[in-house]
Amino acid sequence: MTAQVPSDGATGAAAIHDIDAYMTRLGQAAREAATTLRRTPTGAKNAALLAMAEALEAARGEVLAANARDLERGRAGGLDAALLDRLALDDARIDAMLEGLSQVAALPDPVGEIDGLRARPSGIQVGQMRVPLGVIGIIYESRPNVTLEAASLCLKSGNAAILRGGSEARDSNAAIAACIARGLAAAGLPAGSVQVVATTDRAAVGRLIAMPEFVDVIIPRGGKSLIERITREARVPVIKHLDGVCHVYLDATADPEKALAIAVNAKTHRYGTCNTMETLLVDAPLAASLLPRLAAAYADKGVELRGCERTRALVPEALAAEEADWHAEYLAPVLAIRVVDGIEAAMAHIERYGSQHTDAIVTESWSLARRFLAEVDSSSVMVNASTRFADGFEYGLGAEIGISTDKLHARGPVGLEGLTTRKYVVFGDGQVRR
Amino acid sequence: MTAQVPSDGATGAAAIHDIDAYMTRLGQAAREAATTLRRTPTGAKNAALLAMAEALEAARGEVLAANARDLERGRAGGLDAALLDRLALDDARIDAMLEGLSQVAALPDPVGEIDGLRARPSGIQVGQMRVPLGVIGIIYESRPNVTLEAASLCLKSGNAAILRGGSEARDSNAAIAACIARGLAAAGLPAGSVQVVATTDRAAVGRLIAMPEFVDVIIPRGGKSLIERITREARVPVIKHLDGVCHVYLDATADPEKALAIAVNAKTHRYGTCNTMETLLVDAPLAASLLPRLAAAYADKGVELRGCERTRALVPEALAAEEADWHAEYLAPVLAIRVVDGIEAAMAHIERYGSQHTDAIVTESWSLARRFLAEVDSSSVMVNASTRFADGFEYGLGAEIGISTDKLHARGPVGLEGLTTRKYVVFGDGQVRR
Repeated sequence: MTAQVPSDGATGAAAIHDIDAYMTRLGQAAREAATTLRRTPTGAKNAALLAMAEALEAARGEVLAANARDLERGRAGGLDAALLDRLALDDARIDAMLEGLSQVAALPDPVGEIDGLRARPSGIQVGQMRVPLGVIGIIYESRPNVTLEAASLCLKSGNAAILRGGSEARDSNAAIAACIARGLAAAGLPAGSVQVVATTDRAAVGRLIAMPEFVDVIIPRGGKSLIERITREARVPVIKHLDGVCHVYLDATADPEKALAIAVNAKTHRYGTCNTMETLLVDAPLAASLLPRLAAAYADKGVELRGCERTRALVPEALAAEEADWHAEYLAPVLAIRVVDGIEAAMAHIERYGSQHTDAIVTESWSLARRFLAEVDSSSVMVNASTRFADGFEYGLGAEIGISTDKLHARGPVGLEGLTTRKYVVFGDGQVRR
Repeated sequence: MTAQVPSDGATGAAAIHDIDAYMTRLGQAAREAATTLRRTPTGAKNAALLAMAEALEAARGEVLAANARDLERGRAGGLDAALLDRLALDDARIDAMLEGLSQVAALPDPVGEIDGLRARPSGIQVGQMRVPLGVIGIIYESRPNVTLEAASLCLKSGNAAILRGGSEARDSNAAIAACIARGLAAAGLPAGSVQVVATTDRAAVGRLIAMPEFVDVIIPRGGKSLIERITREARVPVIKHLDGVCHVYLDATADPEKALAIAVNAKTHRYGTCNTMETLLVDAPLAASLLPRLAAAYADKGVELRGCERTRALVPEALAAEEADWHAEYLAPVLAIRVVDGIEAAMAHIERYGSQHTDAIVTESWSLARRFLAEVDSSSVMVNASTRFADGFEYGLGAEIGISTDKLHARGPVGLEGLTTRKYVVFGDGQVRR
């Protein structure tokens, strides 16, 4: 397959005629770099991260200029305001990127940690050592700061990374890639450690997700349709985030003030995030006293309510919820509300309509809390806390490459540990099997 | 799709006309059972395991009779001796199955275990709770005891299982399935907890691996071609075992007696297992003194040697190794031998030709041992121990569903823990996000 890609004056990249051959070269370089990174000591990885920060500080003007070109092209191409906002860099965002690099450098290195070393009757000792996954492919959209964030997390966890950003951020990503390359060079690490795909040809994505010989895992970040397509077509494992249809269930045993605070915070702290509550479930005995107060609080914040019949009997201004509302991830100031009869009905609703992302119960009952924790099959299950806490930083992971809605390997917020795996190590003194 | 399956007189199963509809029913029943199993206490799971053992003891005659029919059909169909041996049950194998059930019942239940619970500055506590994966599909060949073993491990770890055995073990598997069903019923657990696919139609496998709505993970056990096909066609995650091209590297710093013992044991303890050494790497300074002694030991055991030129200079009876020998998983009394110059060359050979299964170094050097442990990217890496130890029982997992050569989720021997995942749990007292 060959594809003509327009020469990219901004980065000096030559036209890439043969996408397959180009991606294969990136894959080979990444695989070789991964062999080096597996044995690179923490100090060298941290030195590279700090050198990247220095390079970015020195190239701040160039990065902002490249970003201005992307924004201009985006405006001319009719990108909407939200997308332009995510694409835009300014001094504050660059400061945040610099801060992020030093935070990742300061995190403990997960590689080499040995868990559970124990002696066996045969005389060997067996444990599990945390090691890098190898080569990670990351496919993302619009936000150019993801380029640096993903690069830093992959490098710190000892992985080589191949990064494929959105075409709308082409120039910004190229400018950031140059800073990454300078940081790697300064620390003496191979250029293949972090590679930013220099073509916006879609065929590059198709090839990236189908090279199991070079790529160990793909992490797509972006809209649901992108992620579904990549999952369907990938020939390598995918760590993915699909939707977040999060619930808060207010049980009759709840402390009403905690219930009110959590229900309001989980919906209104931010609307566009995956850990925002989308459906509120209220136990019938609590509904009459609490729903009108809650409705007033939501009205203050401008949240549109869509309720079941029992909800609407108490909150007449709520619209009638339809079946689709129970499935909806609004990512907007809209909330579905259902009055239910007890924890069984609440958990049945979550089982049927939830997306296994984050679900919370508010209760003062020890037994109900224990049941909810044990039985709700979501990546985060909470008692008396806002769903908005489902986040790598809030959980103390120090950083987050994303939130996984998968069950295997990594579930929930994924930090450095999720970018590693564990191999068995056996320490012997000449033991053989009898 | 419809498929006519011959009515199975031995088990009384009616003909299954519509494979898709049949597999969908199994999938739905498994998904429902998984919801129950998630909250089933350890005691009830153990009771079911022990009731299965009672049922098997009571049906011992029927199971052996069913197995005799399979063997007769196999002989008539021209199955080879090795396959007939794996298919055959006798009282000793049934005793081993009974023993296996009580061992699994005695293992600690991994479900509900909470790791790393810690307080965060926001006031919440965060930890990770071990939970079942959900529904596990297992596809295997010939050995009917796998039916009970897989059922017991899935059940103990709180998962529903759909088991698809080989057509050659059809009657044996049906008889064992009946014992499993009686055990589940005796403990009051849903029949959908363990289902044995009652058709030998291949379309059933195609459907089983393509129902992500019902099946969370597929574990294929069998030959490489089966596993490659399933991996290629599956629409759900696969935990798999591919080949075991295992190495032992004897460094110049090795204790020669340990080197001799380990090199002989790793090859000759059993020939057909995946953790058997297939290539021996010998550091040049050690070769002259040790290779002739080793060759004599292998000759005693009837192992055919295939060596590089430097090996053949020391061991003239060795055949000349070809490139294919370095890639070979012989599973037979054949060994490839290569003389290398130091640990770098040994690790380069392993990186190039190994299958990332199990590799060992024999050395008395602390520094070389540390390097080998850190840098060899295999599911088990050993110092001064035989590769034959790479096994769930030897590692203390108590049981083993297989050995994973994947990197994600489970790597190396997979026990109960590998059949679970971890969700985040958050304990709060009304906390909201600021």
